[in-house]
Amino acid sequence: MHVAVIGGTRGLGNWIANFLKKKECQVTITGRNNLMGEAIASKMKLSYTSDNVKAVSQAEVVVVAVPIEVTPQTIKEIAPHLQEGSLLVDVTSVKEVPAEIMLEHAPEGVEVLPTHPMFGPRIRSLEGQVIVLTPHIKGKWYPKVLKFLESEQARILETTPEIHDRMMSIVQGLTHFAYICIASTIERMEVDIKESRKFSSPIYNLMLDMIARIVAQNPYLYYSIQTQNRYIHEVHETFLETFNHLKSLIDDENQEGFVKAMSSAAKHLDDLESALGRSDKAITALNAEVTHLKESIGQEVGLRHMYSQKIHIGVLEELNPDFVMLKDRNKIIRLKLSNVEVLTAEEIRQWKTDNIPLKTFDVSVIFPENSKPDLIARNIEKIEGVVQAKVIDVYHGQQIPEGWISITITYQVVDSELRREVENILTIFGGKIR
Amino acid sequence: MHVAVIGGTRGLGNWIANFLKKKECQVTITGRNNLMGEAIASKMKLSYTSDNVKAVSQAEVVVVAVPIEVTPQTIKEIAPHLQEGSLLVDVTSVKEVPAEIMLEHAPEGVEVLPTHPMFGPRIRSLEGQVIVLTPHIKGKWYPKVLKFLESEQARILETTPEIHDRMMSIVQGLTHFAYICIASTIERMEVDIKESRKFSSPIYNLMLDMIARIVAQNPYLYYSIQTQNRYIHEVHETFLETFNHLKSLIDDENQEGFVKAMSSAAKHLDDLESALGRSDKAITALNAEVTHLKESIGQEVGLRHMYSQKIHIGVLEELNPDFVMLKDRNKIIRLKLSNVEVLTAEEIRQWKTDNIPLKTFDVSVIFPENSKPDLIARNIEKIEGVVQAKVIDVYHGQQIPEGWISITITYQVVDSELRREVENILTIFGGKIR
Repeated sequence: MHVAVIGGTRGLGNWIANFLKKKECQVTITGRNNLMGEAIASKMKLSYTSDNVKAVSQAEVVVVAVPIEVTPQTIKEIAPHLQEGSLLVDVTSVKEVPAEIMLEHAPEGVEVLPTHPMFGPRIRSLEGQVIVLTPHIKGKWYPKVLKFLESEQARILETTPEIHDRMMSIVQGLTHFAYICIASTIERMEVDIKESRKFSSPIYNLMLDMIARIVAQNPYLYYSIQTQNRYIHEVHETFLETFNHLKSLIDDENQEGFVKAMSSAAKHLDDLESALGRSDKAITALNAEVTHLKESIGQEVGLRHMYSQKIHIGVLEELNPDFVMLKDRNKIIRLKLSNVEVLTAEEIRQWKTDNIPLKTFDVSVIFPENSKPDLIARNIEKIEGVVQAKVIDVYHGQQIPEGWISITITYQVVDSELRREVENILTIFGGKIR
Repeated sequence: MHVAVIGGTRGLGNWIANFLKKKECQVTITGRNNLMGEAIASKMKLSYTSDNVKAVSQAEVVVVAVPIEVTPQTIKEIAPHLQEGSLLVDVTSVKEVPAEIMLEHAPEGVEVLPTHPMFGPRIRSLEGQVIVLTPHIKGKWYPKVLKFLESEQARILETTPEIHDRMMSIVQGLTHFAYICIASTIERMEVDIKESRKFSSPIYNLMLDMIARIVAQNPYLYYSIQTQNRYIHEVHETFLETFNHLKSLIDDENQEGFVKAMSSAAKHLDDLESALGRSDKAITALNAEVTHLKESIGQEVGLRHMYSQKIHIGVLEELNPDFVMLKDRNKIIRLKLSNVEVLTAEEIRQWKTDNIPLKTFDVSVIFPENSKPDLIARNIEKIEGVVQAKVIDVYHGQQIPEGWISITITYQVVDSELRREVENILTIFGGKIR
């Protein structure tokens, strides 16, 4: 399938191009910067052109992933050149305006699907990710798109552009803006954040991480969301009124009024108990990891870098609030604690099996003739670090006493040390190694 | 040691009383409600009196844990009756005023230690919890308190009342107030939160949980923090200015100005990469749990209730976003997903060992005489569900063929089904069960 991603050189557009490429699509990306576009296309092994019209005229699916402000003009530019029977998708954070313009300008026979993927380009798969679809008319493409997204385990939400934009004025509009205001207030007050974290409960630290997470996003995108969603103005006004009201309650020392307002806001939110439970869990998970690492100093641990997915295995030498130091043979590896995940014992074993050259040994043992060679081999496989064990010979011949058999097993281990353990288990039960 | 907790019937004061009781202190709590006080004291097996003066006149350590507003008058009330050589501690969320009043009113020979434990009564241990200490003069009690808190693995932060209150005007003052404003705005806009969660990325859901967490707290305490910390007024004013400034940038469509403000606020926060990593991890942990449960439908799982610590083990029958249903024999147990933690296989095994009546079996097997009976028993212990295995007899007698021995092993299992597994492993290696 031929797909054109308009604005596919960066951000979410680039993520989509990459993702569809892996799903065996023929992907063409477009962008404004030729040098960058060509570099990315060659690295990702897909096509690049700066010519939007050329890109869409050969595509069965066109994904518009340019900034919100230029989305209307981009749609108008490409619309006349769309192939009959093709699908036109946008992935903008607002839906009313793009949906309207796509419907107005797309030629007869082109299906329009306004979407809002509720994730950024940091995710690794669509599993569990929310994608909002606001179809006006569902054509032949719609069930195909649904089926594909469902097979990727995305969570689909179908609604109208208006309901989407109203919801987003809260989900994104209010929270983004309030968080940016908090961060900006902290800056104005010249608070030393690193110092303040020392004074802080784990919950405040996670709260601060969430604020940092929001303000670290692309400010152009966030500006667009704030300005392009026509319901956000009312949200700002309401927030301001609310703030002034609550502030006056504090300034007037109106305890009753404040308590009433706070309790009423709490009651309006859904299930507070679940919210407490989930946030407790999030903190517990972060703490448990640190505790586990503290207890593992001097021992072998495995860490996976969250973004590169690279795995490091070594002896944990040192741990501080920011970094973790591993010793792998004579090399010290220093990793940022916040960016690594701790591997389970099972994951370490799997990694070793996949990455460390295996050693093969054979062993011949004399056992009573009623013993079960294949089950003995399977029992050896249960030893940690033994990857495979197979019977290659069972022998009744001359050198073997009456009532006994000689069993030869070949096995592979991740570490030659394990040879001793294998031979131990064989002799425990009375086997005689030849 | 005799400890009096003034205001020990509820909240943090009650948590402290309970905690110190477990540490073998003789604890007396006081409170305003006799009925409630006596009920709690009898349940927790400690003393109650409504008479603060009586309580402190016999105490070596006095902890003031009453609401901020009544802290000054409470200190003045009890101060003349404190024992010579005793320690006076408060646990209020502001430090300037209580510290001043304690120093002014405590008699000669009484040591004063203003503190702020940065946690609520939901925690289970002091491990990793931050406690701020603002001593004016460090007496003989100070090193003892430090040593105790360090042995409990609390994180101690020593500073002055002024620095504490300035930091808290941000850490608590700003974040609490902004979050309450967000929740209150959501209420005013009549947003259906449950519906909005469907539109939301995992990060928004966690954000909403954090907001819910704040507004679900004791509104009287939060009112006190906002009104009693004299630096908070400036924080409110600065937030308001910041909000109005950013809002005007949006209203005036000043993209450049908004981008500059947001980028600059981001730059002021510390290490954004770590913040992203930590918040990603928190979300990953929440998702991983759900994924694991989804994959365990129809299988045995163990769940621990986060607050009651009660353990439930059963077959996972059903899972939905809010609840998890376990079948334990013929009983269906319905648990709130947000309130349970998933046990590891090791934890389930441990629980069974501790809670299920064990079954004991004996087995006699004939093995070649060079086999190692004790190591065979140890090998059997490695089978999951086998709690103990011990050699009780090794026999060379008449009924046993030349070159062979009979070994009798007694073992305990959590489930009689495991008997077959034990006998299997013995016969695999050529043992003959008698």
